[in-house]
Amino acid sequence: MVKPLDLTGAQPRRLLNYVSGEWVTGTGKAAPIVHAVTGVQFAEASTGGIDFKRVVEHARTVGGPTLRAMTFHQRALMLKAMAKHLMEQKDEFYRISAATGATKRDGWVDIEGGIGTLFAYASRGRRDFPNETYHVEGTTEALSKGGSFIGKHICVPIEGVAVHINAFNFPVWGMLEKLAPTLLAGVPAIVKPATLTSFLTESVFAEMVASGIFPAGAIQLLCGSAGDLLDHLDEQCAVAFTGSAYTGQLLKANKAILSNNVRFNQEADSLNFSMLGPDAAPGTEEFDLFIKEVANEMTTKAGQKCTAIRRTFVPEAMVADVIGALSKRLAGVKIGDPAVDGVRMGPLAGAPQVSEVQKSVNRIAGVAEHVYGSMDDYEVVGADRAKGAFFPSLLFCSKDPFASSEPHDVEAFGPVNTVMPYKNVDDAIALARKGRGSLCGSVFTANDDTARKVALGVAAYHGRLLMANRHTARESTGHGSPMPQLVHGGPGRAGGGEEMGGVRGVLHYMQRTALQGSPSTLTRVVREYLQGAEQKTGGVHPFRRYFEELEVGDTLITGTRTITLDDVEKFAALSGDVFYAHMNDDEAKAHGVFEKRVAHGYFIISAAAGLFVDPALGPVMANYGLENLRFTKPVYPGDTIKVRLTVKQKTWKEQLPDTVPQGVVHWDVEVKNQNDESCAVYTILTLVRRKG
Amino acid sequence: MVKPLDLTGAQPRRLLNYVSGEWVTGTGKAAPIVHAVTGVQFAEASTGGIDFKRVVEHARTVGGPTLRAMTFHQRALMLKAMAKHLMEQKDEFYRISAATGATKRDGWVDIEGGIGTLFAYASRGRRDFPNETYHVEGTTEALSKGGSFIGKHICVPIEGVAVHINAFNFPVWGMLEKLAPTLLAGVPAIVKPATLTSFLTESVFAEMVASGIFPAGAIQLLCGSAGDLLDHLDEQCAVAFTGSAYTGQLLKANKAILSNNVRFNQEADSLNFSMLGPDAAPGTEEFDLFIKEVANEMTTKAGQKCTAIRRTFVPEAMVADVIGALSKRLAGVKIGDPAVDGVRMGPLAGAPQVSEVQKSVNRIAGVAEHVYGSMDDYEVVGADRAKGAFFPSLLFCSKDPFASSEPHDVEAFGPVNTVMPYKNVDDAIALARKGRGSLCGSVFTANDDTARKVALGVAAYHGRLLMANRHTARESTGHGSPMPQLVHGGPGRAGGGEEMGGVRGVLHYMQRTALQGSPSTLTRVVREYLQGAEQKTGGVHPFRRYFEELEVGDTLITGTRTITLDDVEKFAALSGDVFYAHMNDDEAKAHGVFEKRVAHGYFIISAAAGLFVDPALGPVMANYGLENLRFTKPVYPGDTIKVRLTVKQKTWKEQLPDTVPQGVVHWDVEVKNQNDESCAVYTILTLVRRKG
Repeated sequence: MVKPLDLTGAQPRRLLNYVSGEWVTGTGKAAPIVHAVTGVQFAEASTGGIDFKRVVEHARTVGGPTLRAMTFHQRALMLKAMAKHLMEQKDEFYRISAATGATKRDGWVDIEGGIGTLFAYASRGRRDFPNETYHVEGTTEALSKGGSFIGKHICVPIEGVAVHINAFNFPVWGMLEKLAPTLLAGVPAIVKPATLTSFLTESVFAEMVASGIFPAGAIQLLCGSAGDLLDHLDEQCAVAFTGSAYTGQLLKANKAILSNNVRFNQEADSLNFSMLGPDAAPGTEEFDLFIKEVANEMTTKAGQKCTAIRRTFVPEAMVADVIGALSKRLAGVKIGDPAVDGVRMGPLAGAPQVSEVQKSVNRIAGVAEHVYGSMDDYEVVGADRAKGAFFPSLLFCSKDPFASSEPHDVEAFGPVNTVMPYKNVDDAIALARKGRGSLCGSVFTANDDTARKVALGVAAYHGRLLMANRHTARESTGHGSPMPQLVHGGPGRAGGGEEMGGVRGVLHYMQRTALQGSPSTLTRVVREYLQGAEQKTGGVHPFRRYFEELEVGDTLITGTRTITLDDVEKFAALSGDVFYAHMNDDEAKAHGVFEKRVAHGYFIISAAAGLFVDPALGPVMANYGLENLRFTKPVYPGDTIKVRLTVKQKTWKEQLPDTVPQGVVHWDVEVKNQNDESCAVYTILTLVRRKG
Repeated sequence: MVKPLDLTGAQPRRLLNYVSGEWVTGTGKAAPIVHAVTGVQFAEASTGGIDFKRVVEHARTVGGPTLRAMTFHQRALMLKAMAKHLMEQKDEFYRISAATGATKRDGWVDIEGGIGTLFAYASRGRRDFPNETYHVEGTTEALSKGGSFIGKHICVPIEGVAVHINAFNFPVWGMLEKLAPTLLAGVPAIVKPATLTSFLTESVFAEMVASGIFPAGAIQLLCGSAGDLLDHLDEQCAVAFTGSAYTGQLLKANKAILSNNVRFNQEADSLNFSMLGPDAAPGTEEFDLFIKEVANEMTTKAGQKCTAIRRTFVPEAMVADVIGALSKRLAGVKIGDPAVDGVRMGPLAGAPQVSEVQKSVNRIAGVAEHVYGSMDDYEVVGADRAKGAFFPSLLFCSKDPFASSEPHDVEAFGPVNTVMPYKNVDDAIALARKGRGSLCGSVFTANDDTARKVALGVAAYHGRLLMANRHTARESTGHGSPMPQLVHGGPGRAGGGEEMGGVRGVLHYMQRTALQGSPSTLTRVVREYLQGAEQKTGGVHPFRRYFEELEVGDTLITGTRTITLDDVEKFAALSGDVFYAHMNDDEAKAHGVFEKRVAHGYFIISAAAGLFVDPALGPVMANYGLENLRFTKPVYPGDTIKVRLTVKQKTWKEQLPDTVPQGVVHWDVEVKNQNDESCAVYTILTLVRRKG
């Protein structure tokens, strides 16, 4: 077992690596790990002596096959169990998190935000994916006139390993937001956190391993250098990297990555903007929300967020107001030891970060006016300013933001921001684009036309855009929060990658394959009835069969019913729907769509149900929905209809408390007329009882 | 204007480049262009003197803005017009195509296959995309409990240029399959065909330019070297490359590509397999289909297809039969000048290809038995074998295909194939995977369980898989044909890229952006009513308004109706649907879903229509479909319902002959009960008349 860390430095220890199913101590020289607040070394990290080829092999031969044999729903339940387990251990994670310089609130984003992402994928895995080992994507593609040759796309897990190289700023969320979609896809992962804060990752990882919830080989951990790990990746592997553009470029250019065409997803630098709308003058709710958000984004995690606001666009007439309001707000943010009551901003993650940020600040200061904050004169509460990695909030103003590139190019990864005036919305859009690709932007305006203009103007340069106003104030998750439902990433400088976004993030770890064949063959392969496939008729009525007894392709062909004018009249009277097309021959012809009075579409699907239901109490519990209904040919009084009802798809449903065992059955329905012409096609969703 | 080419070599000329809206002759040394059949030089190519930075700038500043201002439907109609125009000029293209060594049938795949791809995207552009400048993707994402903060993804065109670097084997299709999705996305392109066959690309391109159908700056052409073109690409650009893995790697490692994170899509080498199923013994239809397909794939385009079958997997007991049957079939394929009647295989595209293929053949011959064909002894009809780039069909057999890697690794880009025995299906799957990533594979079997096993076994290594049998024989498009509806590309060795696949191929040229905001703001931005957005009630009934008069968000709130037991009885009698849950209180309770007899769902939506329709003749022409219906709460006799009907989305429809001007209106419908609880939600699709 992994020993809990002593953060005082009294008992420093070497962090462990988890490789090939064992906790391993790296040999040789180690990197020191230092407490961000006290500056005391309490740990060190090394991957010396590790055989990286073997690590890759372990994932490939042990983790991969087990994960691939599980269905999406099984993998999703595994993520849920892990999320629950980690949530129970969170106090320990918060304790360790303090040594990264994180306040309780910073830690919440990292720890509970990360666990929340596991929960989110656990739930989407069961909602958006089938209970199969593969995912069927998109519509059926007609490839021939006669319908005997069709196409369908499936996605299957890649069969190598996913290498996750994470940034130092979110040691927990950074790991879990990558692990959730990867494991849901059925792909094992090797986690390589940034060494600086890898001690927190180790503590969470230790709990994951101890829980025994993930199968052997599913996850491995490297605390320290990645050595020659990437050299062992092949065409079935993927890399997800979060970090500096400089490192990212080096990794992308790795020979194995290039020559094996290894998938490489990157999230790098980003000069995110926030814009105050021309309407959002001082005194408006939007102005106040904007000031709050900018200050918050500057100081949360001491500005060490890839998504933090770095550039602040303000109508030129409001620049003084904004600087005044921001300065006031920043002045209220206590800096110090996060353990001390009232401290709102902790130190940076370590001394190396202080000098990095200082370098960037110097470049910005060379072209922009320094309007708030001081490197020399700021108070630190409850800690020794000289020993901790503290950094004050600094505000700059670039009077002519089109004239100098630094505020658009230099990412000072700390509590630093540059205010820039703009003349009109087009100007602001042009400024946003000078970031050359960002993770996110935001605009504060109560004018939805301004919001639309900004959205369409900056979208090509941004992965996410928040449009904030008084109506979102209560529930907005804010400018800087990536959400599991939405894509996270951005073009160009931001790395050109994309993570999460629900299903999309899972597909990054899967291979999409186009399948071609006959409807019957494809039905057998994907286990979903496709138009034109063989049908199995006969035997007991499908409504008399339990979930387990129904098979994809099982079909009922009903008797016939001739639709009469009297039916139409009665249906109009009962429903109240006396639309002219059903009631009057001349009017029905008016637009050239119908030849005469036509039966109500609603009546046709009702009469179809009358033909196909088996009425007696049986396993079919309820019809809870209907999809993709198209009325393909009018049914006129005198026409005779019959119905085909075919089991299209079966989805086993997890048993919830106080419910009977059940599954979802999708039925493919087709209503035809006396000339065998299709009049209506649709899918019905029903709940069907399971035997056990 | 571009002068028609004299293929005899009597009047050789330099090919032209189309840059910055002008036809330009390259200066300096040129690459010779030689007739594949006669060996006579009839043209030359050079891009000397071209300012590549200016070429990129022209696309970016002239082509991009114009294309982006067009909607998807406008761009689609532009593709359709171009497809029609090119189809009218096809005779000239076939004339030029002969000089590439293509038979008429080879030319058909290239020329009409390419134009067909334009047609396919023209039709999908109007079917799968909105009549807007952007694409709204996926479902609305709930980001808050109260519903005041939601998310939605949009895709907008990237704002740089797409550089298309094409292979020599399909000078027309290769250009058009990339141009169609690119232009539909709204992105200008620079086309750089392989010099060897660029003369055919030039002739088609000249017609595209002459037609004036594409706007200025939308397309440019480089016949010859690409010079420093890639160095000028920025974060808004994309490269699509088809060619050798070696060249691909060089291009991917370009500094501008790496440091600006330029999108790079690659289609490179591929050792595609075809497998004869264990059931498909000699005498079966599948055996004959297999022999025909393998021989066909070897000889079409003289085997110069990225998708051609290179590896042929055969049950070990059938190896002799397969070699015998293949040899017989290959012996019947006349080689020579495609202009001569009966010639089924032309030369390779040029002398350099002959020595390339020869080199690869030598490597394969080193480890496999040569079982059919001879480099020295083969007949050429109607041409001088010594002058044309002829190459005979060669068949090899690798007795122990797990022992040597060459047949799995070496792509002989000509009429060359290696037969490999397998013991069982697992073995065959393992062999397929030894290709380390291929564009496509195929399996010939009448056993759908075998098809399923092979499909799931090889999918991770393949971009496309054909499952062929007697049922697909008549309509199959074959192993080697990429289809616009399906993805084309493959992992690993095949380049790791993906093209076409309907909408997917268009999205490669677009930026996906997550938008967050209030339902009202997002409704305004995407022009689609989203749950929770402001509704505009009052005024005339929406059914009395023409298409142009309806606005997204326009809402009708209906009166109420109390559902009675008598209604349920009458509806049961009229529809014939006497399902127990509607008829008997005790039985309705049986599964714990309902409290008592419940009204038919079909009746609820019928009664809803009764409440919301305005019956008199008016602009609403027909209800042609219904989507995403969910019954969210049972309606019991005694409950009182009312309905909200809101304009969700409007799509202008192109006017077809013999129809009245019209548009599609999607209505968001919600049925609520007396407690304001949602009972049913769905979308109705109607045709609504336009004023003009």
